[in-house]
Amino acid sequence: MADFEIHKQLLADCHRLGKLGCSHLLLHRNAAVAWFILVPETDVADLLDLSDEDRTEVIGHAAAVSGFIKKEMRYPKVNFAALGNVVPQMHLHVIGRRPGDVCWPTPVWGNLDAGDGYAPEQLASLKDQLRSSIDLQDEPR
Amino acid sequence: MADFEIHKQLLADCHRLGKLGCSHLLLHRNAAVAWFILVPETDVADLLDLSDEDRTEVIGHAAAVSGFIKKEMRYPKVNFAALGNVVPQMHLHVIGRRPGDVCWPTPVWGNLDAGDGYAPEQLASLKDQLRSSIDLQDEPR
Repeated sequence: MADFEIHKQLLADCHRLGKLGCSHLLLHRNAAVAWFILVPETDVADLLDLSDEDRTEVIGHAAAVSGFIKKEMRYPKVNFAALGNVVPQMHLHVIGRRPGDVCWPTPVWGNLDAGDGYAPEQLASLKDQLRSSIDLQDEPR
Repeated sequence: MADFEIHKQLLADCHRLGKLGCSHLLLHRNAAVAWFILVPETDVADLLDLSDEDRTEVIGHAAAVSGFIKKEMRYPKVNFAALGNVVPQMHLHVIGRRPGDVCWPTPVWGNLDAGDGYAPEQLASLKDQLRSSIDLQDEPR
């Protein structure tokens, strides 16, 4: 989708990391937990309304991110959700969680206090790891 | 899995409706929103850790439930989530939402007050609809 734009609220809340297939990978600015958000280029609002083919592709990318969170970032648990009650554009939360984290065991939405952000060198290092581990691509310029 | 048992907390919170393939379909007792829960027969804890084949099957069933919520129950929106921070057994939330519902736009977890339950005839009618619409099967005796 040549004219696809990520919702401004997601851009305000997140860093842009790059692309996985037709999805944009974002990282929530709150570094208290590893909170990734995938934004597929689609006009469909709800994940379960996608065609089987599109859904399988998007969820495959979510699974790759989840694997990264567990293997590279050493989280034992991943929360996965497609909500979209506030930001209507489809976006998938893939969130590393561990017992004792800042809002365990509640879901992050509405329960995560403002926390530290990522340092530029942390972001750069994370992108490098994602490029080599799950084939993250740069956003087209 | 012959010896599979649904977690007691899920059984306490939900009605059992029947089976979709290898997943058990539950309905949360709080009737304020259409809150379905799918429990696949697996020992894997996180949805995104399933094999591609198993994940596709389970999410296909979630998509069928979502279609039912939208077409038959007339909800415009479905929230989908696999969390499992409190109940570790894999279970997928498929929840009908609409602007102005009792906890809109927040997610249901932790934000839904105790509400009315379903009458027995409502449950029976819902099961009949699910049997004809998405091939819900009775639980084996």
